[in-house]
Amino acid sequence: MPIITLTTDFGEKDHFAGAVKGAIYNELESIKIVDISHSVSPFHITEAAYIIQNAYRSFPKGTIHIIGIDSELTPENKHIAVLLDEHYFICADNGIVSLITQEMKPKKIVEINIHDRVISDFPVLDVFVKVACHLARGGTLEVVGKEIPEIKKLKGLTPVVQEKQQQIIGNVIYIDNYGNVVTNISKKLFEAVGKGNPFVVSGRNVKFKKIFAKYSDAIDFSLPPDKREEDGKKLAIWNASGYLELAVYKSNPQTVGSASTLFGLYYRDTVTVNFE
Amino acid sequence: MPIITLTTDFGEKDHFAGAVKGAIYNELESIKIVDISHSVSPFHITEAAYIIQNAYRSFPKGTIHIIGIDSELTPENKHIAVLLDEHYFICADNGIVSLITQEMKPKKIVEINIHDRVISDFPVLDVFVKVACHLARGGTLEVVGKEIPEIKKLKGLTPVVQEKQQQIIGNVIYIDNYGNVVTNISKKLFEAVGKGNPFVVSGRNVKFKKIFAKYSDAIDFSLPPDKREEDGKKLAIWNASGYLELAVYKSNPQTVGSASTLFGLYYRDTVTVNFE
Amino acid sequence: MPIITLTTDFGEKDHFAGAVKGAIYNELESIKIVDISHSVSPFHITEAAYIIQNAYRSFPKGTIHIIGIDSELTPENKHIAVLLDEHYFICADNGIVSLITQEMKPKKIVEINIHDRVISDFPVLDVFVKVACHLARGGTLEVVGKEIPEIKKLKGLTPVVQEKQQQIIGNVIYIDNYGNVVTNISKKLFEAVGKGNPFVVSGRNVKFKKIFAKYSDAIDFSLPPDKREEDGKKLAIWNASGYLELAVYKSNPQTVGSASTLFGLYYRDTVTVNFE
Repeated sequence: MPIITLTTDFGEKDHFAGAVKGAIYNELESIKIVDISHSVSPFHITEAAYIIQNAYRSFPKGTIHIIGIDSELTPENKHIAVLLDEHYFICADNGIVSLITQEMKPKKIVEINIHDRVISDFPVLDVFVKVACHLARGGTLEVVGKEIPEIKKLKGLTPVVQEKQQQIIGNVIYIDNYGNVVTNISKKLFEAVGKGNPFVVSGRNVKFKKIFAKYSDAIDFSLPPDKREEDGKKLAIWNASGYLELAVYKSNPQTVGSASTLFGLYYRDTVTVNFE
Repeated sequence: MPIITLTTDFGEKDHFAGAVKGAIYNELESIKIVDISHSVSPFHITEAAYIIQNAYRSFPKGTIHIIGIDSELTPENKHIAVLLDEHYFICADNGIVSLITQEMKPKKIVEINIHDRVISDFPVLDVFVKVACHLARGGTLEVVGKEIPEIKKLKGLTPVVQEKQQQIIGNVIYIDNYGNVVTNISKKLFEAVGKGNPFVVSGRNVKFKKIFAKYSDAIDFSLPPDKREEDGKKLAIWNASGYLELAVYKSNPQTVGSASTLFGLYYRDTVTVNFE
Repeated sequence: MPIITLTTDFGEKDHFAGAVKGAIYNELESIKIVDISHSVSPFHITEAAYIIQNAYRSFPKGTIHIIGIDSELTPENKHIAVLLDEHYFICADNGIVSLITQEMKPKKIVEINIHDRVISDFPVLDVFVKVACHLARGGTLEVVGKEIPEIKKLKGLTPVVQEKQQQIIGNVIYIDNYGNVVTNISKKLFEAVGKGNPFVVSGRNVKFKKIFAKYSDAIDFSLPPDKREEDGKKLAIWNASGYLELAVYKSNPQTVGSASTLFGLYYRDTVTVNFE
């Protein structure tokens, strides 16, 4: 039986996530439920998309992902279920699926139409759980919704490429648990625009001329420990998700400060790459 | 096999919740354990009761709920196991079960008396896990405790009804993850006292003359987006748990502030409904 | 099939923990995964060791514990898998295993050498998951690593005993969810040095002449409730893990303050026991 995952802004304290899990087990005793995150900032679609984008691929194909962000049904916020990259996503049509991937097209999109059959005060619990359990039992999308050709598209945070000036103007899309600053500049885009030329990455009060493959590459382990510039070293890396990340080596936001606070870079701020 | 749920004030960081899960799996390899919440404020019985009250009903009947709040055994804080609404609750007799429901009576209450058989430094781990696993195996309450007629009753936060003045004086019982303010005024009570008459809800610096059925009902979607009063709109709703909630539309406590901070309403504060 | 546990500093929000769980289920459909903690302070090896030390023993023998703290492979931070006390630990050789136990010796230690077979951007996901799933399938340590005789040893926070002065100089090793202050002074050491003599425990601005067996032992329940010194009472106890803990009775760090803030005692600070 497939796995059902949960990504929400319910937080760690309230009853919402527990209630949703209870409702799923009530329908399917032997299902596996995996929490991806319940700590997405409230109503923060971009954050949720970044988290799901980087988590879903590890799961087996056929996994069903419930996204409980901004999910109240309104005239402009329909409920959808999407088959994309052989995974199912159940969420509101608020643009989040378009942020998960811009390269792949969904294989099938349905607008969920079971609302007349459920009383809904709490859509994730009432509607999304029903749809997820239906899919987990091997049901088809057509039974719970009406096929639609398109999902809502959100643009917003896409890097701008100034071809002539050989420049990429990107943005901060996520601050991670270590306070490191993730941008929307992918390695692929960087290589396509830069063609291997020297470059400078700039973000508010920091500049980098090198982007490392991993954090520890910034440290010269041939030096004796007391000569190394180590904890707290500023660096740029390609993170495990393939994005340009501005980081501090072994940063602890609670003590010495993080890349975000030290560099003065927060969500939506600009990070630029200039090639020579 | 039934599910065991956990609701505690252990927090997300410490080893306590992990240790409890290990101990359960050590006894019952194939049991399902569901975290309802480990982020209840320390020793906050009212919060825990609100969370469990709104989560337990989603679970299948027969589910066993361990409540690890204020659970140290003292002369005044006995350990009990309760069968209520076809669910089992294992906790200290500190009044929490009386807060979960005031309408239903427990079908059976036992005072746990296995303490002579276990060495207990950590009652949730030592005592509650033993009792939960016993029940999960199909054991009876009588084997782990002595039947008692009553549980401790907590009053405190019950709304006061002034029949003559057609007034309900309620209190804030919970601030949720979005910073919205949940009161103890239920829709049922509201309708019984108000009989459909016009009303004003008042709480410190806010007043409402309408209570919506869901958040987005406060928004006029017939207007073009830039004419709508939308993000940040103040509203009163009946939340999914049936309580009067004072909210801010799509509030994010980390950025624009929440209903709680904006309205100046915190735990125990008064919210009043006056009918004409 | 054995359980796999996760202890990391990934936090509750990011995709890391979700991605790791997906990858494990992708290899082993019916495995049980238990989160011990994802809220270890970033790169805080001592905290992680304290958490695992107190959680792992509850799990069945043969459980596989993944520790995702400071796990990037560097010339000085090899990846190891260790069989210790009949549990498996998979982590970086950064001293953490030496902090989990100083009394027991690992039965077998291997330096993981599958790195040529996996592309690794994210060692917990790429390397540790592979090793954990191999062990869960019943595979041997020798297949995934080369046996080594020793692990890195960290000292640092060990109490100093001044035999002549009958003194133990310990340190704060952990602040728990309730803000209580855990020291590295074990009951065993205390009894060996003190031999039952009277003593004073001192830590910055507090002194204690008694160490209780449990929190509520500090309260005199024979007094009527309004005469008791109860909530907020300062006390010293042997905590459930066998360490000297300086605590506040029913403390809530969010409201009245915690032992840590009230006593001015934080990680690494000194706590001394002087025997007469």
